[in-house]
Amino acid sequence: MREATSPPGSISTTGCEAQIRQALPPTLIWQGDADGWLALLDQTLLPHRVEVRRCRTSAEVWQAIKELCVRGAPAIGVAGAYGLCLGARSAANADRDSFLRVVAEQAAYLNAARPTAVNLSWALKRLSLVADRSTARSGRDIWQAMLEDAHAMARDDAAVCRAIGEHGAKLIRDGATVLTHCNAGALATVAYGTATSLMYVAREHGRRFRVLADETRPLLQGARLTSLELSAAGIDVTVLCDGAAASQMAAGAIDMVVVGADRIAANGDTANKIGTLSVAVAAAHFKVPFYVAAPWSTFDLSIRSGAEIPIEQRSELEIRSAFGVEMVPAGVRCLNPAFDVTPAALIRGIVTETGILEPVSEGEIRRNFPKNFPA
Amino acid sequence: MREATSPPGSISTTGCEAQIRQALPPTLIWQGDADGWLALLDQTLLPHRVEVRRCRTSAEVWQAIKELCVRGAPAIGVAGAYGLCLGARSAANADRDSFLRVVAEQAAYLNAARPTAVNLSWALKRLSLVADRSTARSGRDIWQAMLEDAHAMARDDAAVCRAIGEHGAKLIRDGATVLTHCNAGALATVAYGTATSLMYVAREHGRRFRVLADETRPLLQGARLTSLELSAAGIDVTVLCDGAAASQMAAGAIDMVVVGADRIAANGDTANKIGTLSVAVAAAHFKVPFYVAAPWSTFDLSIRSGAEIPIEQRSELEIRSAFGVEMVPAGVRCLNPAFDVTPAALIRGIVTETGILEPVSEGEIRRNFPKNFPA
Repeated sequence: MREATSPPGSISTTGCEAQIRQALPPTLIWQGDADGWLALLDQTLLPHRVEVRRCRTSAEVWQAIKELCVRGAPAIGVAGAYGLCLGARSAANADRDSFLRVVAEQAAYLNAARPTAVNLSWALKRLSLVADRSTARSGRDIWQAMLEDAHAMARDDAAVCRAIGEHGAKLIRDGATVLTHCNAGALATVAYGTATSLMYVAREHGRRFRVLADETRPLLQGARLTSLELSAAGIDVTVLCDGAAASQMAAGAIDMVVVGADRIAANGDTANKIGTLSVAVAAAHFKVPFYVAAPWSTFDLSIRSGAEIPIEQRSELEIRSAFGVEMVPAGVRCLNPAFDVTPAALIRGIVTETGILEPVSEGEIRRNFPKNFPA
Repeated sequence: MREATSPPGSISTTGCEAQIRQALPPTLIWQGDADGWLALLDQTLLPHRVEVRRCRTSAEVWQAIKELCVRGAPAIGVAGAYGLCLGARSAANADRDSFLRVVAEQAAYLNAARPTAVNLSWALKRLSLVADRSTARSGRDIWQAMLEDAHAMARDDAAVCRAIGEHGAKLIRDGATVLTHCNAGALATVAYGTATSLMYVAREHGRRFRVLADETRPLLQGARLTSLELSAAGIDVTVLCDGAAASQMAAGAIDMVVVGADRIAANGDTANKIGTLSVAVAAAHFKVPFYVAAPWSTFDLSIRSGAEIPIEQRSELEIRSAFGVEMVPAGVRCLNPAFDVTPAALIRGIVTETGILEPVSEGEIRRNFPKNFPA
């Protein structure tokens, strides 16, 4: 039995991330051992209330992903992996074949929670492979191997995000103003974030800079989450409306843009939170370098271009009943695509855990894609 | 004494505008005679509550303009003119010189309510000139001439907006999807609106089309107001988040953009609601024609370019406390410029009451600027 203060899925962190964790519980963490549960920081309630949601079934994880209680491509990948462990747990007493059948069913079920981020299906595939390839004969032993791999995935996610920051931090000059959209932050991953990892490492290197955070309608992940974690890390952050970013670029007040990604096609076209394309087009127009920060698990080499990325359409209510108040007249419809696709041509570089990919092209992506990567 | 149903400042309207007025009180109207008041539809409460605010002093008008109870460049021009009448009314018993001194003081006071829209200072100048040029010797007679001119200005505004629609309606093809940003609508003018006037006239000509209305953060004029008046006029309107417009253009789902303007410099650079620049840049990138609709009173030939247009910075609270709920963590600042400037190069044409200005250049603007225009 491990100590309660250091559960099996826990990550040791340093610097800005450690500062953030003084202010906020982990984004997601497995609590307990084989009879444990997935603890998720409920991000729909931030910044007002800090509440942790305990998921003991795959249905609870599915719901938490669907409702954006946990969100961010890397975080929903790891949450999905733990969700698969929870979904298969009740079958752990079965024989190998029956157990593997449940794993496959549960993976398909969880995969449908959100369609755009590829990390979810990537993580579910990785864990399913662990099960399939296990030589163990009992469901229980296979299950234990899956849980260990989910823990490894959580640790990997933190390490990969840290590596993204180490590679990309040099892009943030001293005195720079950096624009970001949505939350590709510590709250979107197990730790450090993707786009924010550059900021946290740059900060740890003593660089001073300022971040402008698009509020990111409709769900205000920039206003609520990015600003929360950056300010907890002691970074100067200012929130602005999504429509205001272009005027700041026109005024020469933005030196670079860095955002996360939910899925990157083989040619570098990148799906990310709705509004990202607008920022990328403005950045190109005003000659501001536009970077994406994402782990290799966000790349989907099975699709050629962004046109093939499924775009999640979310409820009209996210626009209509913003924050409990009806702002759109009855009878008027709302259009609420959750993501858009930024073409590779508008992206200066993609910061991955193995380095900065630049230029962004299918050739560069295939050349640099990690060998033996679980894809 | 006129009939109560037809006050001196009332406008007779047709078609879509008449339909809107079955659903909503006038944007602004003078009620009564010399002892009357300015009745403003309180737009901060829409779409939830339909309330009319009665202004009997210039301070009440100043406050109503400041708080965006009345908004939209043409509407605040006319509201300012009536406000000047209210501000000078108490001095109407004074002699000519004393009266004119009060007019000048009150004009300066009202002019400071909002800095960006030039129509406010244009209207105040026009009414001050009426006073200065009046040959009447008593304050009361000059005041009466001013009130008559304010009524004329209100009638002119409706006629000018109608003419903008007549000239521009041909730009809206049958089956088209038109994007607009903010509310350059009947609610932003005495009647018909500027950008919306094209839609209302096209609709009256039997054309079928669809409007996408950017919700327009922070104050959601698109979600609350544009959608309200378009749907009241029977036009198919869908609200989307500001950041979603680019992805709709990328998908080829938008055929044209038309927006209003708060001030247009001599070279055609156009200040309009924050977020307009972002739409214009995306429209240029995706080769979607981008039009501005505005009366000549919105042009400010005294300034060469958009760089000279003062941009109003509004309270952080409009972003922070969206919809009555604090969405930004304490201690994090917000940046809230109310307008941005779209360079002339991104504007395909400007629809005025005398025709469509295209290309948008200083030469074209000066050539077409109405002779003997009160500027």
